[in-house]
Amino acid sequence: MANLANVAILGASGYTGAELIRLLAGHPRVRLSALTADRKAGQSMASVFPHLAPMGLPDLISLDAFDPASADFVFCALPHGTTQEIIAALPRDQKICDLSADFRLTDLDTYAQWYGHPHQAPDLQAEAVYGLTELMRDQVAKARLVANPGCYPTTAQLPLIPVLEKGLIDPDAIVIDSKSGVSGAGRAAKEGSLYTEVAEGMHAYGVASHRHAPEIEQGLSAAAGRPVIVSFTPHLIPMNRGMLSTIYVNLTGGASAADLHAALAARYAGEPFVKVLPLGATPHTRHVRGSNLALIGVVADRRPNAAILTCAIDNLTKGASGQAVQNMNVMLGFDETLGLAQVPMFP
Amino acid sequence: MANLANVAILGASGYTGAELIRLLAGHPRVRLSALTADRKAGQSMASVFPHLAPMGLPDLISLDAFDPASADFVFCALPHGTTQEIIAALPRDQKICDLSADFRLTDLDTYAQWYGHPHQAPDLQAEAVYGLTELMRDQVAKARLVANPGCYPTTAQLPLIPVLEKGLIDPDAIVIDSKSGVSGAGRAAKEGSLYTEVAEGMHAYGVASHRHAPEIEQGLSAAAGRPVIVSFTPHLIPMNRGMLSTIYVNLTGGASAADLHAALAARYAGEPFVKVLPLGATPHTRHVRGSNLALIGVVADRRPNAAILTCAIDNLTKGASGQAVQNMNVMLGFDETLGLAQVPMFP
Amino acid sequence: MANLANVAILGASGYTGAELIRLLAGHPRVRLSALTADRKAGQSMASVFPHLAPMGLPDLISLDAFDPASADFVFCALPHGTTQEIIAALPRDQKICDLSADFRLTDLDTYAQWYGHPHQAPDLQAEAVYGLTELMRDQVAKARLVANPGCYPTTAQLPLIPVLEKGLIDPDAIVIDSKSGVSGAGRAAKEGSLYTEVAEGMHAYGVASHRHAPEIEQGLSAAAGRPVIVSFTPHLIPMNRGMLSTIYVNLTGGASAADLHAALAARYAGEPFVKVLPLGATPHTRHVRGSNLALIGVVADRRPNAAILTCAIDNLTKGASGQAVQNMNVMLGFDETLGLAQVPMFP
Amino acid sequence: MANLANVAILGASGYTGAELIRLLAGHPRVRLSALTADRKAGQSMASVFPHLAPMGLPDLISLDAFDPASADFVFCALPHGTTQEIIAALPRDQKICDLSADFRLTDLDTYAQWYGHPHQAPDLQAEAVYGLTELMRDQVAKARLVANPGCYPTTAQLPLIPVLEKGLIDPDAIVIDSKSGVSGAGRAAKEGSLYTEVAEGMHAYGVASHRHAPEIEQGLSAAAGRPVIVSFTPHLIPMNRGMLSTIYVNLTGGASAADLHAALAARYAGEPFVKVLPLGATPHTRHVRGSNLALIGVVADRRPNAAILTCAIDNLTKGASGQAVQNMNVMLGFDETLGLAQVPMFP
Repeated sequence: MANLANVAILGASGYTGAELIRLLAGHPRVRLSALTADRKAGQSMASVFPHLAPMGLPDLISLDAFDPASADFVFCALPHGTTQEIIAALPRDQKICDLSADFRLTDLDTYAQWYGHPHQAPDLQAEAVYGLTELMRDQVAKARLVANPGCYPTTAQLPLIPVLEKGLIDPDAIVIDSKSGVSGAGRAAKEGSLYTEVAEGMHAYGVASHRHAPEIEQGLSAAAGRPVIVSFTPHLIPMNRGMLSTIYVNLTGGASAADLHAALAARYAGEPFVKVLPLGATPHTRHVRGSNLALIGVVADRRPNAAILTCAIDNLTKGASGQAVQNMNVMLGFDETLGLAQVPMFP
Repeated sequence: MANLANVAILGASGYTGAELIRLLAGHPRVRLSALTADRKAGQSMASVFPHLAPMGLPDLISLDAFDPASADFVFCALPHGTTQEIIAALPRDQKICDLSADFRLTDLDTYAQWYGHPHQAPDLQAEAVYGLTELMRDQVAKARLVANPGCYPTTAQLPLIPVLEKGLIDPDAIVIDSKSGVSGAGRAAKEGSLYTEVAEGMHAYGVASHRHAPEIEQGLSAAAGRPVIVSFTPHLIPMNRGMLSTIYVNLTGGASAADLHAALAARYAGEPFVKVLPLGATPHTRHVRGSNLALIGVVADRRPNAAILTCAIDNLTKGASGQAVQNMNVMLGFDETLGLAQVPMFP
Repeated sequence: MANLANVAILGASGYTGAELIRLLAGHPRVRLSALTADRKAGQSMASVFPHLAPMGLPDLISLDAFDPASADFVFCALPHGTTQEIIAALPRDQKICDLSADFRLTDLDTYAQWYGHPHQAPDLQAEAVYGLTELMRDQVAKARLVANPGCYPTTAQLPLIPVLEKGLIDPDAIVIDSKSGVSGAGRAAKEGSLYTEVAEGMHAYGVASHRHAPEIEQGLSAAAGRPVIVSFTPHLIPMNRGMLSTIYVNLTGGASAADLHAALAARYAGEPFVKVLPLGATPHTRHVRGSNLALIGVVADRRPNAAILTCAIDNLTKGASGQAVQNMNVMLGFDETLGLAQVPMFP
Repeated sequence: MANLANVAILGASGYTGAELIRLLAGHPRVRLSALTADRKAGQSMASVFPHLAPMGLPDLISLDAFDPASADFVFCALPHGTTQEIIAALPRDQKICDLSADFRLTDLDTYAQWYGHPHQAPDLQAEAVYGLTELMRDQVAKARLVANPGCYPTTAQLPLIPVLEKGLIDPDAIVIDSKSGVSGAGRAAKEGSLYTEVAEGMHAYGVASHRHAPEIEQGLSAAAGRPVIVSFTPHLIPMNRGMLSTIYVNLTGGASAADLHAALAARYAGEPFVKVLPLGATPHTRHVRGSNLALIGVVADRRPNAAILTCAIDNLTKGASGQAVQNMNVMLGFDETLGLAQVPMFP
């Protein structure tokens, strides 16, 4: 059809690339026009991801062989650190959603501190819009370059930003205990990601040192109107997909858990993907598997003046490729839910 | 819309019921008009299956409260043995796809022998069509009552019937070694289905005594033109979904594995859901997860004049609810792929 | 041999019973003389737990058929609530380690509030010693009746009690985020414990309402010298065994994470089962699987004046049956490590 | 103690090396005197395998730094292909149990055909004894160099050799369908062994081309007294440990399944590690987890004159390191069960 948008995926051989393809397969307004993967250029997608064999996709090409002019929209699903220069080499009017961490931190010093090198494209960083869609919809709609949020930051910011903005919680006593499925580690062949090293056990990692901490704090600081530092501990859970953050907050000014719940319910009323459960209920990751949903729970703590927030997503969908498609829809003026109607798969 | 078919699911509180709902959510020609579950009548689907909460489904009702006149099509996803009388009580012009085993065996003595009681609705049994869609499409199209195949029989018959029909293999030396995910055991709270009893281990069960053996043999006997008895051993594998049958056959009349492959490739050419892999390749269950696909592999054995066939499906989709939707599409004259466009979910 | 202690297990058909048997199989000073299980009385252990078949164990008997005089020591592995009366009916000089929650809470009002009925054996409650072995060794040595700690309370109290006693942390700002394997739910056939309901996902449960909260607070209050209320959230993780608690604390009086580490390292120096990892390291549950070890980690938080403690155990071993055997060893004057030399099983 | 044997493990940084250490930790007659791992030389075992940290093991050294004179016994747990030259360089009176495949095939042409290069130490091959302990005990007792069997061959040969020797089954119609846990793939960081590539799915691999086929056929041919070719298909199952082979046989000369059962029960009567279940029963892998047990089941097939044999082991224990310790015990004249008393760990 004449009105299909040509969409390219740079870095289509990883899990977020494959997830973009799974979701876009059902998108009525786009056509996958180019898929790149440097180390696997020339291979068929069927050989790289056999589950996509029936789709009849174009073969993988090298980045060099990609013609930007052929694409109306570009998803960039490349590793952190390599993305800045690649995006800098694309035309300045190319619409892009970048799934890496390269353009998420607006403060260049913070970027350099956490990523170990100066930012390579500060002008693009200035232009980039942080794509937490529900909270940045207007900016995303006008953006050319969207930095798609990290999975952990999505689960932390969706419940926390509205209650910080309303001054309902103490910004200095936020504890975020997060749990992730293994697909978040990507498809790289690393000892720590082997089945035998992950199954039948769990552990915390990156304790007080994970790179998603400054990304979380950036959003929370903006919401609180002053610098926020959080306790943030990610854990690796033996499951392919799924992410849950359990967030402990201290209430301020006499606020109650019910007040938090009311604020969140009001903020997300009518949102197709963010759902606030009844007060006292908590979400399971398996209730969002394969979907773009984010489920938020609010429970009053027994500790006085405290509450517990939970947020569950599929780390590959709302935590990565699903939110990226959602951002593309907003950027291209499509219905925001196109390609994202998957019902969660359970069991 | 005026042209939506009203569809009822009898037995909507089990996994096959939930899977029907997941698939039909994306079906453009149907509307879920009634969901029954006797023990959970009055409950919301959100309380029974929280992952379906965002869909806004009708509440569960008792079977007694179901008005057949309100439904253009009925899926029956009730336990084996209870279904015959329930379907017998429905109007004789009601179009039905039954997911139980109650109408699969055409021989009433075989039914009585394996299920321990005489068939309660022999006239309906005579009317029922066995719904292995790709191999029974014309009969399904004319049927009022379709008996949806079992999961194991689907994986055994899809690769074996075409090669038996062509006389390429010895009907007396068929070994079917099958492996299933745990969802095949349903949602009943049984000790043997507990996480702790299933995870991190596996075992064979129902060895030489599983009720799917006569169902498999019924189809293979018809294909071979004489009675066939098979070795059939199911195994329980620690995964939610997925089924793989590894089938060992002896070749006859100088046939080769390549001949088997050619026969299967020809038989399933153009089929949207059954795909024959290149000769020598074997499918993974994870490459069909959540989809209605069946993948078939053919490999030459080192043992002379022997070959190994493999067939992978998602036991809840092509092995149950997906094939049921496929049959409904054929019965109602819809495009056979409506509601079944899900790309496999990996990882 | 004349010097073997005759040991009975009341409630031998559950997972903690089976784990006691696994551990005691290698204990050089005990003989399993009686195993009870009312609903399975008369069955062989081989039929209830096939993995124990090679051990040649006595058949299961009913509780009525158990002769207390035949046993030098009794493990009580019965469900919460049923245990009080059963232990009350045993001779008052019978040495007992009770694995239920029935005698853990010293305050009878707290018990009644959390368990929904008045305590049935207050005199025994007064006598019972709480068996967190490393911290109660002297009392355990003199005890007749030991209340074996819960799994979550073990992971919370081992790292917190020493630092509370030393006044290094704020008792009013303790957040305990805990994660457990599925075996903690026992062998009862419940829908929520099915493989299909647990695998490939996770969730919080009992948020701010789990019965282990008052047990944790009892120990922490004693250590702090004043009432302590904690934030405590358990999570169900798809793994058979293993428990990790991630504990967030605020430091007081200028204390540092290194001070916490030093206090814990000093407190547990020489302990055979409790190991404090180097400052900054965090334990995996898979590094203690099948063993009686508890591994403790201490990390400085980025949030000012805060630290993160972690504690990993096998919930069936140090979290239940292993600690029970450890307590028996202390009560009977055996070497504390007898029967508990299992090296963790990885992978 | 003066009478402890000094034992070295060459290749201690893989899973079979770690499993040897786990088992030998409880062996009363040995002392671990040297552990080698070339790429990790200089590291502590605690850093390579944190679960072994509490054992106080010697640091890893390079192979060059290993002094053979310091060891009374050597386990060689190195990769296939690299082992021949290393063992050739050891003193000719060094007692060795080799866990690789390098000395398992007695026919040098078969070795060259399957492993792609000529054997590098044909004289040692002539000396090596194949260590399927129960069936080769006398030869193992006199051996200097034992080739420890592969995991699949152990599960195939234990049930098949006795019934072939008695002429009860047709050697030309043997189908071996095997399923393995993931630890059999070792600790190498390969994409195909990632959690995300293995969990929640399964597949056959090496169909009709796995290197364990000639090893199986070597033993079966010797038992049958003539060349035997088998159908053998391994499958990868999402579990850390465990192996099950389901074996389909045709009965000869009027033999029945009961005859097979009687032959196997007689052959393994009194064996501490090989247990034949009652006729009709089938073993679970989880009932042997962590132990050196092999459980064998025999079931009559519905297909006339056919039977189904099953054999379950822990692939790392009886399938590798456990059988290796068993062989060491026989070679050094120790009680055969020393170090191997672990009760299976379930759940």
